[in-house]
Amino acid sequence: MAELFSDEYFMEIAYKEAQKAFDEGEVPVGAIVVCENRIIGKGYNLTERLHDVTAHAEMQAITAASNYLGAKYLVDCRLYVTLEPCIMCAGAIYWAQLGELIIGASDAKRGFLREGKHLVHPKTEIRNGILEDKCSLLVKDFFKGLR
Amino acid sequence: MAELFSDEYFMEIAYKEAQKAFDEGEVPVGAIVVCENRIIGKGYNLTERLHDVTAHAEMQAITAASNYLGAKYLVDCRLYVTLEPCIMCAGAIYWAQLGELIIGASDAKRGFLREGKHLVHPKTEIRNGILEDKCSLLVKDFFKGLR
Repeated sequence: MAELFSDEYFMEIAYKEAQKAFDEGEVPVGAIVVCENRIIGKGYNLTERLHDVTAHAEMQAITAASNYLGAKYLVDCRLYVTLEPCIMCAGAIYWAQLGELIIGASDAKRGFLREGKHLVHPKTEIRNGILEDKCSLLVKDFFKGLR
Repeated sequence: MAELFSDEYFMEIAYKEAQKAFDEGEVPVGAIVVCENRIIGKGYNLTERLHDVTAHAEMQAITAASNYLGAKYLVDCRLYVTLEPCIMCAGAIYWAQLGELIIGASDAKRGFLREGKHLVHPKTEIRNGILEDKCSLLVKDFFKGLR
């Protein structure tokens, strides 16, 4: 089991969110926002159910966390997400000035890192590859099931 | 008066949305989504009131239009926005596959075009500078008022 409050510990929780998306037939991505080791926002991809391209896991977790704090900046917060954010979500991470961004699996095709780290805020620390195999496998299994 | 259903006609309506933001002390940006000359989504910037960086005018207009259509793709729709979209909103426009994007004023600092047109969908037609002076002046007046 992952050490309490480690990156792996929190990514497991984000992964559980991603599994909810998987179970609902959504591209399985999950995200949580953590502040002082407390989870203050959660979300999983709901673009199909809501017919809304903006309903990505990260967007929902950011909105939930901001709502919880009553503040739009998340400077002292960490965002854990099972798949590398897209450009839209990177833009939201930029505006929210997230302190840390922790990514599970890479997304070479749709991820923001192909454009460059500058899409998120210069103060945002990025860590990559936490529970990578597991997070990546969930997405692969999802698309295999669609074929 | 602008010709019925011209770009100027619809941008006037987006401008009215931007004025609502101005009146509420928000950075004044307004957006509408138009489908077959009907307005199916509206929005204005509410990031301060909602404490939510994702509450940009475009995001709200896209969500409203998708909700109206019960579909997440807006291929046959036009998005009118008074200020050049940021990277987050460009990402949303990409995902929604908007048919046309019509911009009022440019935003050299925060606009997506400094990264390149490829941030939106390759099929999205872009037109720029509709009621540019008016849209730009509203933003300038807003920031002047803050000083």
